[in-house]
Amino acid sequence: MKLKTTDDLHREDEDDDEVIDVFHGDPTMYESYWKQHGEKAMVVIPGWKFTSYFSSAENLCWFLEPEFANAVTRLHNLVGNAVTEDRNIVVGTGSTQLLQAALYAVSLPNATDPIQVVSAAPFYTPYQTIVEFLKSGLYTWGGDAYKFDKDKPYVEVVTSPNNPDGQSRSAVVNRRRGVVIHDLAYYWPQYTPITYRADHDIMLFTVSKSIGHAGSRLGWALVKDRKIAMKMTEFIMLSTIGVSKESQLRAAKIFRVVVDAHEHRDSSAFFDHSYELMARRWCQLREVVEKSNLFSLPELPSGKCSFSGRTFTTQPAFAWLKCESKAEDCKGFLRNHKIIGRGGKHFGDSEKYVRISVVSRDKVFDKLTERLSNITSS
Amino acid sequence: MKLKTTDDLHREDEDDDEVIDVFHGDPTMYESYWKQHGEKAMVVIPGWKFTSYFSSAENLCWFLEPEFANAVTRLHNLVGNAVTEDRNIVVGTGSTQLLQAALYAVSLPNATDPIQVVSAAPFYTPYQTIVEFLKSGLYTWGGDAYKFDKDKPYVEVVTSPNNPDGQSRSAVVNRRRGVVIHDLAYYWPQYTPITYRADHDIMLFTVSKSIGHAGSRLGWALVKDRKIAMKMTEFIMLSTIGVSKESQLRAAKIFRVVVDAHEHRDSSAFFDHSYELMARRWCQLREVVEKSNLFSLPELPSGKCSFSGRTFTTQPAFAWLKCESKAEDCKGFLRNHKIIGRGGKHFGDSEKYVRISVVSRDKVFDKLTERLSNITSS
Repeated sequence: MKLKTTDDLHREDEDDDEVIDVFHGDPTMYESYWKQHGEKAMVVIPGWKFTSYFSSAENLCWFLEPEFANAVTRLHNLVGNAVTEDRNIVVGTGSTQLLQAALYAVSLPNATDPIQVVSAAPFYTPYQTIVEFLKSGLYTWGGDAYKFDKDKPYVEVVTSPNNPDGQSRSAVVNRRRGVVIHDLAYYWPQYTPITYRADHDIMLFTVSKSIGHAGSRLGWALVKDRKIAMKMTEFIMLSTIGVSKESQLRAAKIFRVVVDAHEHRDSSAFFDHSYELMARRWCQLREVVEKSNLFSLPELPSGKCSFSGRTFTTQPAFAWLKCESKAEDCKGFLRNHKIIGRGGKHFGDSEKYVRISVVSRDKVFDKLTERLSNITSS
Repeated sequence: MKLKTTDDLHREDEDDDEVIDVFHGDPTMYESYWKQHGEKAMVVIPGWKFTSYFSSAENLCWFLEPEFANAVTRLHNLVGNAVTEDRNIVVGTGSTQLLQAALYAVSLPNATDPIQVVSAAPFYTPYQTIVEFLKSGLYTWGGDAYKFDKDKPYVEVVTSPNNPDGQSRSAVVNRRRGVVIHDLAYYWPQYTPITYRADHDIMLFTVSKSIGHAGSRLGWALVKDRKIAMKMTEFIMLSTIGVSKESQLRAAKIFRVVVDAHEHRDSSAFFDHSYELMARRWCQLREVVEKSNLFSLPELPSGKCSFSGRTFTTQPAFAWLKCESKAEDCKGFLRNHKIIGRGGKHFGDSEKYVRISVVSRDKVFDKLTERLSNITSS
């Protein structure tokens, strides 16, 4: 796996043959914003802080820092993307851990069979691996939700906007004895119009895709049912005895900076700036794809964003690129041109598709569109 | 679960009937040291840091911050408690996650039966829960290592010094097809004489018990076999996509402060100060127990510490208190006196024992010894 350093990027200037790695959704795009506008987002942590496992003994989620909980609530209230009233907040080491916590919480410990976990294809690849890697007797991977037809308890994971294809999603199985977990990692106004305050039973969010700090490994769940929230908390206790308080303190600070800037109508407030950046990138990408007869991009939903007042088309963190040429293996085709994306098969879909990240650093993104525009035949 | 705030502690002064919670090993004892001596341990994290999942693309453990790896090596070299040469460092969200990563790494994915995980009683309670809670098909709890007699692959977890009883431990099964995981959380010179540089295949350490920052949720493993280290890294990727970089950055800084102070022979260097504090606490506790005919403490090993040059008896983070009175249920007996410890049964041992934390804040510890000394009959 390749991490691009500044030196790498300088080398790229000199070398057009440099491999462009857009395999991961590493949100380094946000780094330059925080370099330019982040002086208030600096945190100072004295040496004596955080010798205890406990954050708040009164809280159901006893390792949740109250500052982080407050900042999460303020952020959702600002954006209007999720209901926080009467919800339990459970903090996790990224939404990956929270997904596993939710599976643990909704599975039936005394069932003879593990509960089936499904998601509508194309789905986020790691779901399947996460469900399967410990060979748990509590849950098992059930595959594409569109094909699920058993009259058994099941869990459906709904990602909206969807990773990899950016579509708005809702549950597709809708049978009795089902539990739905909503992964709303990308339901933020730089990616998609905020059209409703999400009000589902279990909603997962993450710092990495909202404000960009993937290295903090921090996510949160909004959970309606107190017992589910308690079992999720139990999972995180058994898995990691809580969640880094440094990460929570820092994310709380950065959320406050974001909310304050929007409340003060700062012209370079985070979601406005990030929306503009994503809009420019998608414009650039669409232009390249439209000029080429080798690729296409999916139709994506448009709407009026209640947060910004703008009407726009979803501009996802990933492009779900389709090869319209004869090439059956789009990933391999791009790899021949030294662009590394993630193939459709990984997402339970055709190899005609490849997922490429749109949230890399500027230089990488610019190289990507330049390289794509230079591909003239298969 | 009760978190003692400053207000609680003031109330305790006024109220002798306050419950004393020494159930957890919450290392808040260290807070006052870091308040007095920690001005150099402050960290400042700019807003733009850590937008990437990656720390170091060249490293096998790609989410390990190089600064943290260097600080871990310096700390072990200072203390002399573990070999770091030619070892792979894997960082984890506390040693709890690393234990699970190690179980995943050494289990056999295609075996028909899950591998048995054993530990010699009395053992750290959560081991069993951690092994069992996901009903994994990879590993299962095999109980007390002293009773393990199967001719099958197994994993033995050796904690030394042991939690709960403070004894020095080595593997007890010693059969073929066994893997040993060494949990060395307490192998630090404030608790026990450093008598050898540990050189085992898989060794787990944690920030919480070495320098006291339990809230950082940070641990590390020193792993001889590169393939095992790679599989542990894979586990942590699937479990949490890495480990908080804020926690790593901060622990690196605090480790450096500790090592620098010892190298400069600072009179209030961390391990000297912590050794003295533990020595005073154990002296106080032994005095109370010796005066009473109701309790006893285990005999613990003595030795010359290669780090400090001192000869002393192990002074563990927990006291493994035995009721010598008629009371069969020592935990219940203490609870009647408003002292909350963890009963022996939890550790696979007799209810005549109870584990009480010796690493609480001063006020809590002083109250504990005072309350114990006032118990005059069962």
